[in-house]
Amino acid sequence: MTTELEKFSSGEKRLEGLNRWLVARLQSAIEGLPLDITLWDGTCLRGSTEPVVAHITIHDRTTLLKILLNPELNVGEAYTTGRMDIEGDLVALHNLYNQRVASAYPTPWSRLRKRLLDLRPNTLHRARGNIYHHYDISNDFYGLWLDQYMVYTCAYFPTSAATLEEAQIAKMEHICRKLALKPGETVVEAGCGWGALSLYMAQHYGVTVRAFNISHEQISYAQEQARIAGISDRVQFIEDDYRNIAGQFDVFVSVGMLEHVGRACYPELGATIHRSLKPEGRGLLHFIGRNRPLPINAWIRRRIFPGAYPPTLQETADIFEPWNFSIIDIENLRLHYAKTLVHWLERFEEATPQIRKMFDEQFVRTWRFYLAGSQASFLSGFLQLFQVTFTRNTYNQLPWTRAHLYQAMSPGKLQKEN
Amino acid sequence: MTTELEKFSSGEKRLEGLNRWLVARLQSAIEGLPLDITLWDGTCLRGSTEPVVAHITIHDRTTLLKILLNPELNVGEAYTTGRMDIEGDLVALHNLYNQRVASAYPTPWSRLRKRLLDLRPNTLHRARGNIYHHYDISNDFYGLWLDQYMVYTCAYFPTSAATLEEAQIAKMEHICRKLALKPGETVVEAGCGWGALSLYMAQHYGVTVRAFNISHEQISYAQEQARIAGISDRVQFIEDDYRNIAGQFDVFVSVGMLEHVGRACYPELGATIHRSLKPEGRGLLHFIGRNRPLPINAWIRRRIFPGAYPPTLQETADIFEPWNFSIIDIENLRLHYAKTLVHWLERFEEATPQIRKMFDEQFVRTWRFYLAGSQASFLSGFLQLFQVTFTRNTYNQLPWTRAHLYQAMSPGKLQKEN
Repeated sequence: MTTELEKFSSGEKRLEGLNRWLVARLQSAIEGLPLDITLWDGTCLRGSTEPVVAHITIHDRTTLLKILLNPELNVGEAYTTGRMDIEGDLVALHNLYNQRVASAYPTPWSRLRKRLLDLRPNTLHRARGNIYHHYDISNDFYGLWLDQYMVYTCAYFPTSAATLEEAQIAKMEHICRKLALKPGETVVEAGCGWGALSLYMAQHYGVTVRAFNISHEQISYAQEQARIAGISDRVQFIEDDYRNIAGQFDVFVSVGMLEHVGRACYPELGATIHRSLKPEGRGLLHFIGRNRPLPINAWIRRRIFPGAYPPTLQETADIFEPWNFSIIDIENLRLHYAKTLVHWLERFEEATPQIRKMFDEQFVRTWRFYLAGSQASFLSGFLQLFQVTFTRNTYNQLPWTRAHLYQAMSPGKLQKEN
Repeated sequence: MTTELEKFSSGEKRLEGLNRWLVARLQSAIEGLPLDITLWDGTCLRGSTEPVVAHITIHDRTTLLKILLNPELNVGEAYTTGRMDIEGDLVALHNLYNQRVASAYPTPWSRLRKRLLDLRPNTLHRARGNIYHHYDISNDFYGLWLDQYMVYTCAYFPTSAATLEEAQIAKMEHICRKLALKPGETVVEAGCGWGALSLYMAQHYGVTVRAFNISHEQISYAQEQARIAGISDRVQFIEDDYRNIAGQFDVFVSVGMLEHVGRACYPELGATIHRSLKPEGRGLLHFIGRNRPLPINAWIRRRIFPGAYPPTLQETADIFEPWNFSIIDIENLRLHYAKTLVHWLERFEEATPQIRKMFDEQFVRTWRFYLAGSQASFLSGFLQLFQVTFTRNTYNQLPWTRAHLYQAMSPGKLQKEN
């Protein structure tokens, strides 16, 4: 017969055994990394003797167990719910994580997970849900930390000293130049965000634009901007899916939408571009991508971008090859995205007092973790930013070299017109 | 009992029937095309009422039969052997052909043929045979129509008025800038032709180069050039296969070799690049490619480039993805290749009196057909010219934008140093 005391003591021993095992696993996971971790019982672990980039506190055993079982998902979950605290450089911490997992990927499990995710199409209905989740939360929130034009995609810094505002204008100008827009031409934009690029093209290049987006909040904002600028007759913002684009245009442009399309729908996107382009048409896709196929980060998929997938260049062939499109220029701007994220994260941190009034602390931590993690991913080469310019295969009218992309910008373009 | 006369007359009738059938097939093949064809018996056919771009004469029935059965192979065979004559614009004629077949491709037969060709590896031995076939025929011959630096790849025309000489220097400069070469760095070149780029890099960028090529004639010529320039200590030309490259370098560059590698060997090429590059390494591949996978033209494969294959960008992923290389810039220079070929064909035609002293008329016609056909293929978007710049995935040291590619060249670089 065991007494209550013996039962308790044997349970304690089992837990002690579990603790020892967890600590050993954790120590091996951080081996060589410049960080230290304090556990709920005061246990301290150190990865290396170098100066640490972050002090981590894990507040309970269950959280540590979850993190060890699935770090990709549960490090983020633990931090954002406050069951784990991080003091120090969050970007550097993400960088360490990326470097460690990058060498392990792709694993058999990541390959399987990717295959399964690839099969899941973002139907019209599901796409709306995905976009609502991220983009419709509040224009005021985005206004607190984006630039004045509300551009929520990688900026282009002509010099590394450029401000975020200058860099977002330079990005729009860079895209217009790559497309060699001419006055009077027609443009369709798929996934137009808050409308900045469409407005810029109409104002500075004299083109007529039809822009599509399924985010209700963004389209309302963009329509209002067109009214204020007095160019609603030349820029039409339509709350609809890219698959419903009708008509034929000289130019197809899409900035930061392909990540949300999902691989299963690339043939449909390709068919849409083909259908929408005149025989002498050309286009540009700007998107987050990868060097090799990996499933999207599990935490990002759950908390930030459901249904999203950053493709390799090879995978985008499903868009271009069936229609014999000719790829004429690809530029990788990953370090520009890292820099964009430095600005966003700085502004976000400055705005946290206001953001806390709009949302709860978990929201603040979620967005901080996402912005810092993204910055680290672009910095460490875990994510890429591709701008792909393409034409119909027989189009011979593009500028002879790319030198025109690098001519000085007229000062007028650096001021907002409206 | 049939008399000899009846036999003869029934044979004649069968031939007449065959003739009528052949003529009908030919007429339908050229329907709508601005060309006319005269047959051995004086029959004249016209594709359209537009002004013709070429008058074609087919000298016998067997030749017509072969052309109709396999035009891709036998139009070239008939022209080069003199069983068919072409008066008029050979480039425009090729263009018509490309436009007609482009819409038909890919066919089930072309897919099958491509699959079979993809399986055939260019072994070390076979690669030597392929290269000998084209590049070892005579340095003097190439000297008659290439530029003074003997560059036998797509030039880069900063303006369309540039001379071929200027454009070949500009191409070498463009590549050096894309690679952001720094004095003291080490470069390996795979497939170095007559050595112009290696010499240029050493002379103008202060780097040390090891250059590989399996063409004996080209390597001998290149070694002689290095001796004349007095830089044999900094540029080493080695008669060996790219697969035998040993050592580690800052930069891997290959201009016009990938077309000869063949798809089956892309993983091996990727492994070679990975093995040859330092942890902070970077590289550039310059190659003829396609918008979508097609087998190489059958006549070109038989008469010009055995074992060659121009890949799509997607297909080159077998080189980059396994090693996590990051593609940072792709430029499509197909119209620059069309212009390069305008120069080459002009110079070739001027040099035909000398070429006829070195080779026979069939040789002259073969090369004319090949140069004109290539020009048409680049012009009509049937072939592309890709320059792909890549780095190790964690390399963050490249210039911030591509603006440095478009700064004016110092005049000193436009003169040959030796």
